[in-house]
Amino acid sequence: MTLPVFGHTNPDTDAITSAIVYASLLSKLGVAARAYRLGDLNNETAFVLQQAGVEVPELLESLPEGTEVALVDHNESGQSLAGLGSLKVTRVVDHHKLGDLTSKDPLYLRFEPVGCTGTILTKLYREHNQPIEVWEAKLMLSAILSDTLHFRSPTTTDTDREIGTYLAQIAGVSDIKAYALEMFAAKSDLGDTPADKLLKLDYKVFPFGGNTYGLGVMETTNPGYALGRKAEILAAMQQEKDAKGLTGVFFSVVDILEETNQTFVLDDAHAEIIKGVFGADTVEQVADLGNRISRKKQVVPAFEKYFG
Amino acid sequence: MTLPVFGHTNPDTDAITSAIVYASLLSKLGVAARAYRLGDLNNETAFVLQQAGVEVPELLESLPEGTEVALVDHNESGQSLAGLGSLKVTRVVDHHKLGDLTSKDPLYLRFEPVGCTGTILTKLYREHNQPIEVWEAKLMLSAILSDTLHFRSPTTTDTDREIGTYLAQIAGVSDIKAYALEMFAAKSDLGDTPADKLLKLDYKVFPFGGNTYGLGVMETTNPGYALGRKAEILAAMQQEKDAKGLTGVFFSVVDILEETNQTFVLDDAHAEIIKGVFGADTVEQVADLGNRISRKKQVVPAFEKYFG
Repeated sequence: MTLPVFGHTNPDTDAITSAIVYASLLSKLGVAARAYRLGDLNNETAFVLQQAGVEVPELLESLPEGTEVALVDHNESGQSLAGLGSLKVTRVVDHHKLGDLTSKDPLYLRFEPVGCTGTILTKLYREHNQPIEVWEAKLMLSAILSDTLHFRSPTTTDTDREIGTYLAQIAGVSDIKAYALEMFAAKSDLGDTPADKLLKLDYKVFPFGGNTYGLGVMETTNPGYALGRKAEILAAMQQEKDAKGLTGVFFSVVDILEETNQTFVLDDAHAEIIKGVFGADTVEQVADLGNRISRKKQVVPAFEKYFG
Repeated sequence: MTLPVFGHTNPDTDAITSAIVYASLLSKLGVAARAYRLGDLNNETAFVLQQAGVEVPELLESLPEGTEVALVDHNESGQSLAGLGSLKVTRVVDHHKLGDLTSKDPLYLRFEPVGCTGTILTKLYREHNQPIEVWEAKLMLSAILSDTLHFRSPTTTDTDREIGTYLAQIAGVSDIKAYALEMFAAKSDLGDTPADKLLKLDYKVFPFGGNTYGLGVMETTNPGYALGRKAEILAAMQQEKDAKGLTGVFFSVVDILEETNQTFVLDDAHAEIIKGVFGADTVEQVADLGNRISRKKQVVPAFEKYFG
């Protein structure tokens, strides 16, 4: 049986590339594995796969009950394939907090508090004395640059920096900064993407204080693009909130060059939460959250603290 | 802050030695750490520590809320320090299924489906290029021999065998079988140990079908000892069941040389469960469970399957 390997829904570059690279490593180690994706590629990831000359993984929509699977870059059922609870998770490589995952049998878990799953995967290659191919290095480097915003996000560790530099040598990327800017420009080139897709570019649902909140993030070098489409995006937020019965939906426009966060706020109730969580005022449905560029490290923990 | 490292309650050799060895490894890697135990040593573990010339870790009874801790050889709150949920687990090295553990932040998790935590710890030394000292090798070898019943338990993997042989060389143990028999003889030398302590030699509480059951195991080279004290042990089982409000309590006498399992059965209700789970009849309050010598691999999964 070939082991399906996949990252989270609304996949980002780390979710896609980690599935591809972990499936490749497992196959080299004698475990037949194949990478899948749980959603559409964003522009950055499409650019990265093209640069590495790698095919887009097939979309996975469901699996038969009891199928063994490997997860990368996530572990919570709410961010995974529908019906994950009826599958058998045998391997997880992740750098997030541990959510609602359980298992009936012993399994492989490899979690480290680093900036990117690609960093952990590089360590696995080293530990198994497996040479890293050029395309694998390019994918993991791209994931690290994406997740750490070119080593500037507060989630970045020294290990991410060391491994990023190491991978750049293998990948033949002599100017890391220039490559990162190319990736970010690709990410920011959103053209006439519909507003509901903009909301879902990097979108996760979290349980806070017994309720559920959707938090979308647009990391961009061109925040003016999102601000110019504010009315459309707010409408998409309201529609998502109503359709999914969420308590709240927020959307942060993160300028990854200037390191700023402008968050769209639906109404007074949402503004009150933003005031309580971050002490920030909302003006014309936008709250300035300062330099909080990491959802994982700076935004979600603040919500969790506020809702106890 | 020194990081407390501990294995499960009612500690066995792997729980104790893994805490000692992981604390030693972490200290070498620059993370100040100290091993503790959550209960009394069994005779085998006392023998092993004496053989390795290592001091018995201090008993840990509680920690202040929010203290960072590392777990080895377990991950479920029911098998850990009381109030684990109010502590901050930052590292786990384990070879069991994943239970109710969650975290608020990213953390280190290293789980592998192998026979012993000592096997995983040896891999960590290799990955970090840390030489293994003689006493560390002796502790990890002892844990592997203990958990795998000298490589005969069905939980044993090729990795356990390879690493056990490797550690024996470092530890200067030329006759692994003779050393294992010495360990098992020490374990079986129970003298006038009170019956309630016999029950708790290797005892864990499991949730099956919404209820809780206590499963004790005595691994011994001398099953006649336990059979001769059957009435006392059954009384201790009844007392434990009543005192903790458990739905059931079972006690398995595992002959680790002959590879047999004779399980003590409290009453007709317990006998019915044993019949349902294993198809085994109970005669004079003892059920013959055949060669089911591994609680983790052969006993617990059968209960889980039965209770759905």
